[in-house]
Amino acid sequence: MTDDILRSIESVPGFRAGVAEAGIRRTGGTDVTLIASAVPCVAAGVFTTNKVYAAPVALDRELLADHPERIRAVLINAGNANASTAERGIQNARQSAAWAAQHIGCAPDEVLVMSTGIIGLQLPMEKFAKAIPLAAQNLRANGWDDAAHAIMTTDTLPKIACIEVQGPDGGYTIAGIAKGAAMIAPNMATMLCCIVTDAKVDQAVLARALRQATNTTFNHIVVDGDMSTNDTVLALANGLSGVEIANDARRFVFTGALYRLCKVLAQAMIRDAEGASRFITLHVVGCENSEQAQRVANTIATSPLVKTAFYGGDANWGRILAAAGRSGVELDQYKLSLWYEVGEKDPKGGLQLCANGVPLDYADGEANAIAASDEITVTLDCGMGTDAATVWTCDLTHDYVSMNGHYRT
Amino acid sequence: MTDDILRSIESVPGFRAGVAEAGIRRTGGTDVTLIASAVPCVAAGVFTTNKVYAAPVALDRELLADHPERIRAVLINAGNANASTAERGIQNARQSAAWAAQHIGCAPDEVLVMSTGIIGLQLPMEKFAKAIPLAAQNLRANGWDDAAHAIMTTDTLPKIACIEVQGPDGGYTIAGIAKGAAMIAPNMATMLCCIVTDAKVDQAVLARALRQATNTTFNHIVVDGDMSTNDTVLALANGLSGVEIANDARRFVFTGALYRLCKVLAQAMIRDAEGASRFITLHVVGCENSEQAQRVANTIATSPLVKTAFYGGDANWGRILAAAGRSGVELDQYKLSLWYEVGEKDPKGGLQLCANGVPLDYADGEANAIAASDEITVTLDCGMGTDAATVWTCDLTHDYVSMNGHYRT
Repeated sequence: MTDDILRSIESVPGFRAGVAEAGIRRTGGTDVTLIASAVPCVAAGVFTTNKVYAAPVALDRELLADHPERIRAVLINAGNANASTAERGIQNARQSAAWAAQHIGCAPDEVLVMSTGIIGLQLPMEKFAKAIPLAAQNLRANGWDDAAHAIMTTDTLPKIACIEVQGPDGGYTIAGIAKGAAMIAPNMATMLCCIVTDAKVDQAVLARALRQATNTTFNHIVVDGDMSTNDTVLALANGLSGVEIANDARRFVFTGALYRLCKVLAQAMIRDAEGASRFITLHVVGCENSEQAQRVANTIATSPLVKTAFYGGDANWGRILAAAGRSGVELDQYKLSLWYEVGEKDPKGGLQLCANGVPLDYADGEANAIAASDEITVTLDCGMGTDAATVWTCDLTHDYVSMNGHYRT
Repeated sequence: MTDDILRSIESVPGFRAGVAEAGIRRTGGTDVTLIASAVPCVAAGVFTTNKVYAAPVALDRELLADHPERIRAVLINAGNANASTAERGIQNARQSAAWAAQHIGCAPDEVLVMSTGIIGLQLPMEKFAKAIPLAAQNLRANGWDDAAHAIMTTDTLPKIACIEVQGPDGGYTIAGIAKGAAMIAPNMATMLCCIVTDAKVDQAVLARALRQATNTTFNHIVVDGDMSTNDTVLALANGLSGVEIANDARRFVFTGALYRLCKVLAQAMIRDAEGASRFITLHVVGCENSEQAQRVANTIATSPLVKTAFYGGDANWGRILAAAGRSGVELDQYKLSLWYEVGEKDPKGGLQLCANGVPLDYADGEANAIAASDEITVTLDCGMGTDAATVWTCDLTHDYVSMNGHYRT
């Protein structure tokens, strides 16, 4: 259920967003974003697990480990990932946070940072220094659309979502902006999301809710299987609504709303993925546990042969079985069954192509018509158990190769 | 050292090859190949580890487990993988072997089979039945070039190699034909190789030599990371040279020659890989053990972002570090060093781009000129130990997407 989600943010009490053009992104446009709260926030973050992680990831981890209940702002730049930049990269991240803090009127360690763009280049600090005060001057309650644009790299559309939650104790808002087009992709480095709320959330509750929501949304989308050096999801709660979210029933309402918000943002990334022409919902069911299902699903969703077949509108389902077979999971090929269906659907609907490893006698034209749809649901039943996983993915197209073959040069 | 390898096969005493056109391959041409020995052979095989494995793989494993010292022939078809075809697929494989045996004059269980092509379709047995006697009639000592062509699918060039080994006890020949263009690719399903020799090889020695040679050649090439349902390397030794290869010093000479032969065939697959425009030798050095090095190398070699950057001739080395970082190996990003060099070279030569995680001050133009070469050597030093791995790979191009997006339809 995601129909209670708005695709725009009017305002979130106490939060403001401002942007400026520093000239960091080579193709121009606003590329520096500042998000600030009028009062200190409780904050939580989920970060890339890549061993090659960017300087902002190192800095944010340090700040959130030290004082997660005292965060005032997030500074974001697009065009340069500040990754593989060694000690100088960390110093630059810290310096940029200090500049932002000066203009907001808070301590330097109250500003989190995020970067996205090219890996292996130091940040152009002179340009950055000039843009930060401009972004601070531009801070306003309805600056979210500008912010969602300023954090884009190869994204073609801004990703914005907002939900109003009403409860017995009053209402609050959760809102987020995100960017990412080659999800889990070290080039555009890559998936960033900043979520803000005026709920008064206990820090442990916020951290747990964010981890849960991320696990089943941002961690379930696959463009190319490449994991970024910069992937970061941050959540800031400033408490100005007065509605308290503690570790009781209210936590479930809050987590549920956060999940729906993240799902909309995650799916928006796949729909806008680099060069993608089809949106694919892949259900892997009938597994012994969910890790097994996730492993099979990820192997299928990252297979170049599966992804190119979808690009061609070709129901070449043997490639799906073969990808599952090399996933490292102990599958029995004579228990595998497969379905294709048009749209974003629940598992096991539509046309069955294979049952317990035996190809069925279906019409090629019907199968290819499904494979050539804009939205396709694929279900693979492994016939071993009752656990399942769902990932959202896309096809591998000529445009993906063009964008990534010639991005930097 | 591979310069003692011929790229053609004149003859191997006692072996003959014959081809015919069955019409199994949709694009036409000869598609059935029979390779037969005048006398029973000792044989060994290395097969895909995919849990979704084809019927011929199941049959060959059974025959080689039962009587590896009594093999007379190999029957190969292109255009249909006989994979995901369940019990009927195994019956069809067995039936085709029986037809071939009848025309050669041997027992049905003395014929091994290999198939390559589309997954999930039953073999057209009527067509196959008509072609097998024709291939048997065409058997001749110099039929190897025809055979190398008849096993091709999306290959654009036949892969043939031959080596003459001279020793104190006399000489013998090892020769092989192979096919494969999307190595470890479930679509074209995929990498087949048949090696024959007139050496008189102990079966355990042959099996061990084949496993060793395969591990460092066919298992070290990466096109797209997709593992086939059909990958098979077979070796048949008929002993007609009278030169005995037992488990002593002669084994090392034999294994060395077999390795050089397999390396030529493996590299030929990469040079002819689907849509590939560059040949990349990737050395990962400085690891704690070779499994670790292999894991890092495979993650880099299968990264779509790394492969598209090479296609674009873009020295976007941050993508290489980021791929290494997500390999699952416990890397320290501040110990990573990277070199690019033109050609197929030893590790750590050429232009160094990054040292212990710090980007060096090199000329962009020089780095991109290397990345835009036909042959590139990349070395990643992980700075943790002394073990290494080398893989040969290629770029990801528009042509790869075209070939795999529209192969079947």
